[in-house]
Amino acid sequence: MKDVKKYIDENKDRFLEELFELIRIPSISAEAEHKDDMVRCANKWKEFLLAAGADHAEVMPTKGNPVVFGRKTIDPAKPTVLVYGHYDVMPVAPLELWNTKPFEPVVKDGHIWARGADDDKGQSFMHAKAFEFMVRTGQLPCNVKFMLEGEEEIGSGSLYAFCEENKGMLKADIILVSDTGMIAQDIPSITSGLRGLCYWDVEVTGANHDLHSGIYGGAVANPINILCKMIASLHDENNHITIPGFYDDVLVISDEERALMAQAPFDLDKYQKELEIKTVHGEKGYSTNERTGIRPCLDVCGIWGGHTGEGSKTVLPSKAHAKISTRLVANQDFEKISKMFKEYFESIAPNCVTVKVTPSHGGASYVSPLEMTAYKAAEKAYQTTYGKRPIPTRSGGSIPIVAGFEKILGIKSILMGFGLGSDAIHAPNENYPLFNFYRGIETIPYFYEYFTEMSEK
Amino acid sequence: MKDVKKYIDENKDRFLEELFELIRIPSISAEAEHKDDMVRCANKWKEFLLAAGADHAEVMPTKGNPVVFGRKTIDPAKPTVLVYGHYDVMPVAPLELWNTKPFEPVVKDGHIWARGADDDKGQSFMHAKAFEFMVRTGQLPCNVKFMLEGEEEIGSGSLYAFCEENKGMLKADIILVSDTGMIAQDIPSITSGLRGLCYWDVEVTGANHDLHSGIYGGAVANPINILCKMIASLHDENNHITIPGFYDDVLVISDEERALMAQAPFDLDKYQKELEIKTVHGEKGYSTNERTGIRPCLDVCGIWGGHTGEGSKTVLPSKAHAKISTRLVANQDFEKISKMFKEYFESIAPNCVTVKVTPSHGGASYVSPLEMTAYKAAEKAYQTTYGKRPIPTRSGGSIPIVAGFEKILGIKSILMGFGLGSDAIHAPNENYPLFNFYRGIETIPYFYEYFTEMSEK
Repeated sequence: MKDVKKYIDENKDRFLEELFELIRIPSISAEAEHKDDMVRCANKWKEFLLAAGADHAEVMPTKGNPVVFGRKTIDPAKPTVLVYGHYDVMPVAPLELWNTKPFEPVVKDGHIWARGADDDKGQSFMHAKAFEFMVRTGQLPCNVKFMLEGEEEIGSGSLYAFCEENKGMLKADIILVSDTGMIAQDIPSITSGLRGLCYWDVEVTGANHDLHSGIYGGAVANPINILCKMIASLHDENNHITIPGFYDDVLVISDEERALMAQAPFDLDKYQKELEIKTVHGEKGYSTNERTGIRPCLDVCGIWGGHTGEGSKTVLPSKAHAKISTRLVANQDFEKISKMFKEYFESIAPNCVTVKVTPSHGGASYVSPLEMTAYKAAEKAYQTTYGKRPIPTRSGGSIPIVAGFEKILGIKSILMGFGLGSDAIHAPNENYPLFNFYRGIETIPYFYEYFTEMSEK
Repeated sequence: MKDVKKYIDENKDRFLEELFELIRIPSISAEAEHKDDMVRCANKWKEFLLAAGADHAEVMPTKGNPVVFGRKTIDPAKPTVLVYGHYDVMPVAPLELWNTKPFEPVVKDGHIWARGADDDKGQSFMHAKAFEFMVRTGQLPCNVKFMLEGEEEIGSGSLYAFCEENKGMLKADIILVSDTGMIAQDIPSITSGLRGLCYWDVEVTGANHDLHSGIYGGAVANPINILCKMIASLHDENNHITIPGFYDDVLVISDEERALMAQAPFDLDKYQKELEIKTVHGEKGYSTNERTGIRPCLDVCGIWGGHTGEGSKTVLPSKAHAKISTRLVANQDFEKISKMFKEYFESIAPNCVTVKVTPSHGGASYVSPLEMTAYKAAEKAYQTTYGKRPIPTRSGGSIPIVAGFEKILGIKSILMGFGLGSDAIHAPNENYPLFNFYRGIETIPYFYEYFTEMSEK
């Protein structure tokens, strides 16, 4: 890959300006009012793919938000890399905690600050620019396909059917994804495992209308009190999840592998300081990295009920709500867990309330074997640009569609993430270091080169 | 009281139209945006008092919302009745559950439907019209004062100082209040006891910003999960409150009084059907009426944290909040309980989070002795218009200022409430039966007559 650094240096301001065009479109998939922004964002991606050198690019409708597909074929006999990313972003609330406007990207202190700066506009756009470099300098070594979806943050609902219906079009040797993180700016890593996910909406109903908390308080069930009791009962005193059978399918990691994982650099003190917490909190018997990497967990992602505004309304509410999610590990089946939780949570509801659990979305966990050609090619690419062998890590996050790709398309994925833990993805003040953005664009072409070489051997 | 029924009959449409003028002003004390509405509502009351026959009426400033004061003196040697009410109302959310607009009163099926229809615009306005009747027909038997405040629904914060500063102006023999309910339309009752109240805002903080629930989930405390655990721990398996010392000062009712209370008509089946609940829920060992009348309780009036909007954002939030209140009974000291809860709740916070409890408002409980002159006069007034002796009841609700009046002004209150349990006060679709509105206007003048007679004996 000749002159990749030079190419980046000559075009870096343009790369940023183009990325900002994508970021400025508030493509929040969880909020219906942004429906048109999703289409605008998809069309912008199509333009960028064509401009970067795709033979063909199109915005393809789905039941939900459209998928952007593009390709460049140089030789059908050569391997094909399918780049996957997503153009949708997370909601931005609470807005008052942002230092800048979430959809008006700014560069400050060497970082891009905006919703989507990392997840996943910043990371996916590196692939467009790496592709552009290879095309324009005549160095593209294999065939390339791009697929960008608009529903990753809400569970990729439409992409499963899209993959089923377009198996031929999506044929590839490997799926290349940048939607994860690395250990530190100077410690490259490859995500070799992802957790699965299950998400439910829970509604607890007491009386048929809000009641005066004086006249009825103490005599009629308060659905908030009950919901709290029910949620509290989901963990025991050791922070084990109490749902019967929940851990039955969890793959137990060998002592050897646990020891290997424990070698990854991790500074608990720094971790706690950065989060401003006195102590971490998790399942007894596991380290912090094990708790997020190889163990499932259950979190309430949202809760609301009663008077949540100003002042002190004395009300005994009719309803209380929660959004509950679990992160799953190999070999937990998310559909089995989805059903298990619904049945269990409804079964523990006391007689004085009605509880309704609605499964929202979910996805399986995923493991990338270290022996895979794509893993070895990625390892060599990082070694070329960072001068260091990347460490395999297991991410606590989920990209359910990655397990879906394997199941539906029969294609493995390689997760070359360039994000950092400090990027505040899904949170106010999301950011992405310029260093990582440009180093990603530099590293990706080497993956194409080594993957093509190793595949053709 | 000659021709009271006739007077009401001749003026009933005007009474309603005037009440609607008050109701149409959205005087929600809990919401700062309604600051001007509070002043408008107070001025409207002043107009009505003058029009009804007051010698003098004025809108008096306080640190918060103004107090309306009015009076008519017929003879300094005669007894003085001080009418107390409040012109502020509760917030109206959730708006989508209202069948009509909360501040556009309508009459349907014999009820007035609107926020404030009962609590307390409808009930307090009966006093203005009863007063008008007595003045215009030359039958006012004693001196009258009116005091209407605009902060009852947020704890009467400014009225305590107002009473301290205006003890002379407020001098009276009895305070007459209609801000409670009666057993049924054909079963008059007098509230002989009120519960006290304590209210706190609780904030639980985990990490310093919202986190990705995948990357951190299982390793860092989720403040919602922790808040739920903490709230759940406040009640044991018998629904006793677990705060050490909480019940220490609770006045234990004699077996005899419990037996008397149990004679009040109460249809548990109907109660449950009306609320559409399968079963009531409360402290073990007490009946429903005892649970609300003579026992304290603890309710979460509001809870929120994390993603509460559309969709399924996977977030591990930085903060979770709750609004928690207790209802207190004689002889619990609300200031002692306020401090006790704050200390206890903060003390049970695990190390992985920070918990802040902010006392919001509170008030003492109140008991009206059945031997009091005003009680006997009220009893006779109801007997005159309903043909039945009213039953003494203990309300689960709180009017903390009533205990404040006794403490600051040294004046007892008599609680002649005409509301019904079905009036949905503090809730969507608040309503007040026309029957109760007009019967209240009819009954009140008899109280003045009998109270004056009995006091002068």
